[in-house]
Amino acid sequence: MNITAQVELCLRDSGMSEGLVLANAMNITSSVFINDDESGLLHDYEQWLEAIAPHEPVSQYRHNDTGEENADAHMKRQIMGREVVIAVTDGKLDLGTWEQIFYAEFDGNRRKHVLVKIIGE
Amino acid sequence: MNITAQVELCLRDSGMSEGLVLANAMNITSSVFINDDESGLLHDYEQWLEAIAPHEPVSQYRHNDTGEENADAHMKRQIMGREVVIAVTDGKLDLGTWEQIFYAEFDGNRRKHVLVKIIGE
Amino acid sequence: MNITAQVELCLRDSGMSEGLVLANAMNITSSVFINDDESGLLHDYEQWLEAIAPHEPVSQYRHNDTGEENADAHMKRQIMGREVVIAVTDGKLDLGTWEQIFYAEFDGNRRKHVLVKIIGE
Repeated sequence: MNITAQVELCLRDSGMSEGLVLANAMNITSSVFINDDESGLLHDYEQWLEAIAPHEPVSQYRHNDTGEENADAHMKRQIMGREVVIAVTDGKLDLGTWEQIFYAEFDGNRRKHVLVKIIGE
Repeated sequence: MNITAQVELCLRDSGMSEGLVLANAMNITSSVFINDDESGLLHDYEQWLEAIAPHEPVSQYRHNDTGEENADAHMKRQIMGREVVIAVTDGKLDLGTWEQIFYAEFDGNRRKHVLVKIIGE
Repeated sequence: MNITAQVELCLRDSGMSEGLVLANAMNITSSVFINDDESGLLHDYEQWLEAIAPHEPVSQYRHNDTGEENADAHMKRQIMGREVVIAVTDGKLDLGTWEQIFYAEFDGNRRKHVLVKIIGE
């Protein structure tokens, strides 16, 4: 899910012109990351993460003995990261040409929750 | 090793109420990361990292030709990350419900060393 | 490619003595990361990343149906990370003994582009 427009809105509301924006997932089974908004690539990430940290069999993870079935989601989130920090220059997110900000949830049952914090002047 | 309380103490000492906290490992074979304080999960991370970057055979890594045996620890630290950046709101770490800050050392022989830097007002 | 000296130069030019430095790749197939400047280790990272996200066969990635052949580079960059945030103390990068800042490009055909943003006082 591309959240670039929402982060830009937060920045506009803040009125900051120079500083840093922190955007982080507040769930420990989800990630905020920056990459390309290309549907094939987003599909590739899913496949690739599933190969590195398979959901099944759920019994392979001790965490799942607690009654959860989301240990793999905790792994996937570490690969993709919790947060991004983005420079603000002249009141705009200082992003490269193809940089877009994404939120990804690896455990389908959670509510999405992103924190955006802006510091500067 | 859960270091949330120590980071909170640093924040209290700083007297900051709005800003950002950076917490990073100062050793290149260790990580500061945010996830769940559940013993099964922490065990799963160890197993999973060992599968992705096995310690043995040590000869598979050119870095170990230097006399070190910790190349795998350098890999594991990249997966788990070097640092976290956390928002400070109303004088408190702005963490999600289950977010806890951990320090992990992947090369048993190192002294633990974390840097906490707080900026804001 | 070790970019520590360039980041130090940016810091010196800024005249900041206390704060944070953000250094991030502006290409989505490259990384800025902190680790050891040891040639064997840098070689090991390449081998290891190639095992986790193989370039060949290019047809295994849907992203490559767009005419690109760099889907694997997008994966490798997520493992190694987009950015680092470094504390500034007494006008210097507050780095651990062996911490060096690197830029790595996983898709050979791109121009290198790093953003360095410094905030503080």
